[in-house]
Amino acid sequence: MSRAYDQLEARFKKASVLGDALSVLQWDMSTMMPDGGAEARAEQLALLKTLAHQAVTGDDMADLLAAAEGESLDDWERANLREMRRDWVHAAAVPADLVDAMAKAESACEMIWRQARPNADFAAVLPSLREILNLTIQAGQAKAQALGVGIYDALLDQYEPDGRSADIDLVFADLESFLPDFIAQALEAQDQRPAPLAPQGPFAIKKQKELGHKVMAALGFDFHRGRQDVSAHPFCGGYPEDVRITTRYNTDDFATALMGVVHESGHALYDFGLPGGKWRYQPVGRARGMQIHESQSLLMEMQACRSRPFLAYAAPLMQDAFGGQGPEWDPENLYRQATRVKRGFIRVDADECTYPAHVIIRYGLEKALIEGRMDLADLPGAWNDGYRRLLGITPPDDRLGCLQDIHWYGGAWGYFPTYTLGAMSAAQLFAAAKQADPAIEPAIGRGDFAPLLAWLRTNVHGLGSSLSTRDLLVKATGKPLDAGVFKAHLTKRYLS
Amino acid sequence: MSRAYDQLEARFKKASVLGDALSVLQWDMSTMMPDGGAEARAEQLALLKTLAHQAVTGDDMADLLAAAEGESLDDWERANLREMRRDWVHAAAVPADLVDAMAKAESACEMIWRQARPNADFAAVLPSLREILNLTIQAGQAKAQALGVGIYDALLDQYEPDGRSADIDLVFADLESFLPDFIAQALEAQDQRPAPLAPQGPFAIKKQKELGHKVMAALGFDFHRGRQDVSAHPFCGGYPEDVRITTRYNTDDFATALMGVVHESGHALYDFGLPGGKWRYQPVGRARGMQIHESQSLLMEMQACRSRPFLAYAAPLMQDAFGGQGPEWDPENLYRQATRVKRGFIRVDADECTYPAHVIIRYGLEKALIEGRMDLADLPGAWNDGYRRLLGITPPDDRLGCLQDIHWYGGAWGYFPTYTLGAMSAAQLFAAAKQADPAIEPAIGRGDFAPLLAWLRTNVHGLGSSLSTRDLLVKATGKPLDAGVFKAHLTKRYLS
Repeated sequence: MSRAYDQLEARFKKASVLGDALSVLQWDMSTMMPDGGAEARAEQLALLKTLAHQAVTGDDMADLLAAAEGESLDDWERANLREMRRDWVHAAAVPADLVDAMAKAESACEMIWRQARPNADFAAVLPSLREILNLTIQAGQAKAQALGVGIYDALLDQYEPDGRSADIDLVFADLESFLPDFIAQALEAQDQRPAPLAPQGPFAIKKQKELGHKVMAALGFDFHRGRQDVSAHPFCGGYPEDVRITTRYNTDDFATALMGVVHESGHALYDFGLPGGKWRYQPVGRARGMQIHESQSLLMEMQACRSRPFLAYAAPLMQDAFGGQGPEWDPENLYRQATRVKRGFIRVDADECTYPAHVIIRYGLEKALIEGRMDLADLPGAWNDGYRRLLGITPPDDRLGCLQDIHWYGGAWGYFPTYTLGAMSAAQLFAAAKQADPAIEPAIGRGDFAPLLAWLRTNVHGLGSSLSTRDLLVKATGKPLDAGVFKAHLTKRYLS
Repeated sequence: MSRAYDQLEARFKKASVLGDALSVLQWDMSTMMPDGGAEARAEQLALLKTLAHQAVTGDDMADLLAAAEGESLDDWERANLREMRRDWVHAAAVPADLVDAMAKAESACEMIWRQARPNADFAAVLPSLREILNLTIQAGQAKAQALGVGIYDALLDQYEPDGRSADIDLVFADLESFLPDFIAQALEAQDQRPAPLAPQGPFAIKKQKELGHKVMAALGFDFHRGRQDVSAHPFCGGYPEDVRITTRYNTDDFATALMGVVHESGHALYDFGLPGGKWRYQPVGRARGMQIHESQSLLMEMQACRSRPFLAYAAPLMQDAFGGQGPEWDPENLYRQATRVKRGFIRVDADECTYPAHVIIRYGLEKALIEGRMDLADLPGAWNDGYRRLLGITPPDDRLGCLQDIHWYGGAWGYFPTYTLGAMSAAQLFAAAKQADPAIEPAIGRGDFAPLLAWLRTNVHGLGSSLSTRDLLVKATGKPLDAGVFKAHLTKRYLS
């Protein structure tokens, strides 16, 4: 008789292979699919999701998990079993009809939101968003009970396993007390320096793409196990043997796409480096969670590449690509461009100094909404209050306010904090890496990311989900998440 | 209680949606996937195939089918039920371990064949091919028993439902007695005419692609429901809302790729025109079989487009695309190029006069091998005998002989005759279409395929699998498959 554990492995492998197929179908939908194919694709995605769900929610799962927990397992098997139980709790907690209702409500609300956003018409999407919120609360309550945590934490746990709002409250409070003054000082310091010169386009997309591929290759992106394409909203999809990143190009501005390429490549390098072999299709072989995943993209983008060493290496590549000459192509000028601070309304356009403010505002609001401390009708006002308080600006309308992000309208509640948790983790991991290997930073200056990648492979990528996020950070950096390292990074880069 | 029939519809829809997902994953594998992704993709394909198989082979299928056959059904439902039973018989006849063994043997043999072909080393692949043949005979015997037909017919039925070798023997004998003399006469007539002038390249792929898209649009290809890409082996994949054709370009020769585009577009137009709505995900909504599918590609390529009217329309487009001037761009010269006859060793390079000889040789050999009348070790000699007898040429080695096609090495036995059945059906359908609507041919001369497409929609595409191949031909053309129409077409084009 095979162990209960082995039976579980077979089921989770099935769910994982279905997940891989789903990721290809989703990539195709965003990059290749003709518009007429949307409905048929939705059928495919819905069916594969249902099958993946069924694979790990059989009636005998509770018994199998319990039996496996009594079996003799090695450390990784035990970690795998822990992640299996987490998956199962999330999958089984919510009744099938609620899952169905959510999927339908999410598609419907997303569709209305796509109209409402350009029209800055929050009222148009409010009823539909209210339904999403109600269903999310129902699902959150069911998961909260199964996990033995509060409702917000139950939702957060979907994206950041073991993430707890009590911990986030502490680090965010720390940041919140730091940010307003810091941003003001950073802007003041910036005003003291000469304004950076912007390289003038047009920048041919073909040239941008070639430059991006050079940089991807330098970072360690393996084109035998991945590719890069165009989509309206950049993302990283796929799986370790076939990682696919996407980029949005703008012929007036090459730097945004290039930094986007670096960002998504950071995600991709994590996926490339996940434990393979026996763990390839198991929960323990997956990336740890959104906090660490975002830390890998931000480590590459914000820590490693919006830096003097990287831009000294990249400036000649940029000049070559676009025939650039003159002071605007000087590495120091490019660095000032890449680290420009500006208070703005739109999260995805924000620099690393103001970005946490965008996230902290959303985190507070979604927690209040989920916990029933605020009514949805009050969201636009509360949103704008947050922007006044943390950034000193007032969105002129809801298009530039609470309608800008798809997350809530698409049913993703509890996701936002992972962006800033990721940014803080990135600072902490990069600092530890540089301390562990002083060759890392000079190598980046030569376009050689091998030393950095080696450290990340050992300390992050290759661990999969064997450790909790907290334990991973402690093991790699000597301490749990600490806003101080991130604040020190910001202070050094923007105030010194 | 829902009808047994309705329960069956739900199961076949599931299999069909999985089939759609599979077709996207297969398209991606041939066009987009980095080489490192092969193993993971194989896992996905194997799992989805197994799930699709399971969806229509439950223990209660025999009872459900029997119950549904006693229910009150309309004509299309009844035709759907007939196709459901066919699917089930094919799926359930072969035990799971044999299906597994075949899949593994096929991958293994294909891999060896990829090495053996360039080396012209039949001996290297013989043991592996012998295993494939043995397993195919086992599966064929199981299906033959379930279907109540001979073993070859049971295999043929997988590709051409209700296809029977007794019927094929008759039409192929007719062709076989016609071809050797006809080919000699066609070559003689060709020698009497001035040799066509070949337009000189290089022909930029970008220009070839643009020209191809113009022609696709003229044919009626809907780019909102399909796309065109590059692959090593051209094919048409996808489903009615998202049909994907592929092309292989050669900068020395634009005509081959262009006619390839026309050919695959013929397949695509069939898929676009299949019955949608209630039948979209049902067996009766599928294309009728490989004979009619190939008839649609060959009708467009051989009948409609390797013709004077089409080339008179296309010549200026070609001249525009490549800056062509001079007598080689004259429509009559292009027509002589497009209808050039040449005895050759390679099937996929053959013209429409010699192509049937390639197929008749393979058909005779595969039937003898499947029915145990010939040993595999004798294949190379028998192959070469066939080429001497029907084409008067002897392949210098097995690379240009029995190693050239992937079919047998990949487990596709019983497929070859559908190419020539398709060519004959194409001639018969095009003749009937032109007779029914005399506007069809002049419209093609203006690049207007709407009249032809309208006739095909009504008489072929929109019927799905509601009629048998035979009944479809009788209804559309007034008679079952008749080699005479094809012979008349060849005689008119090549000897008059």
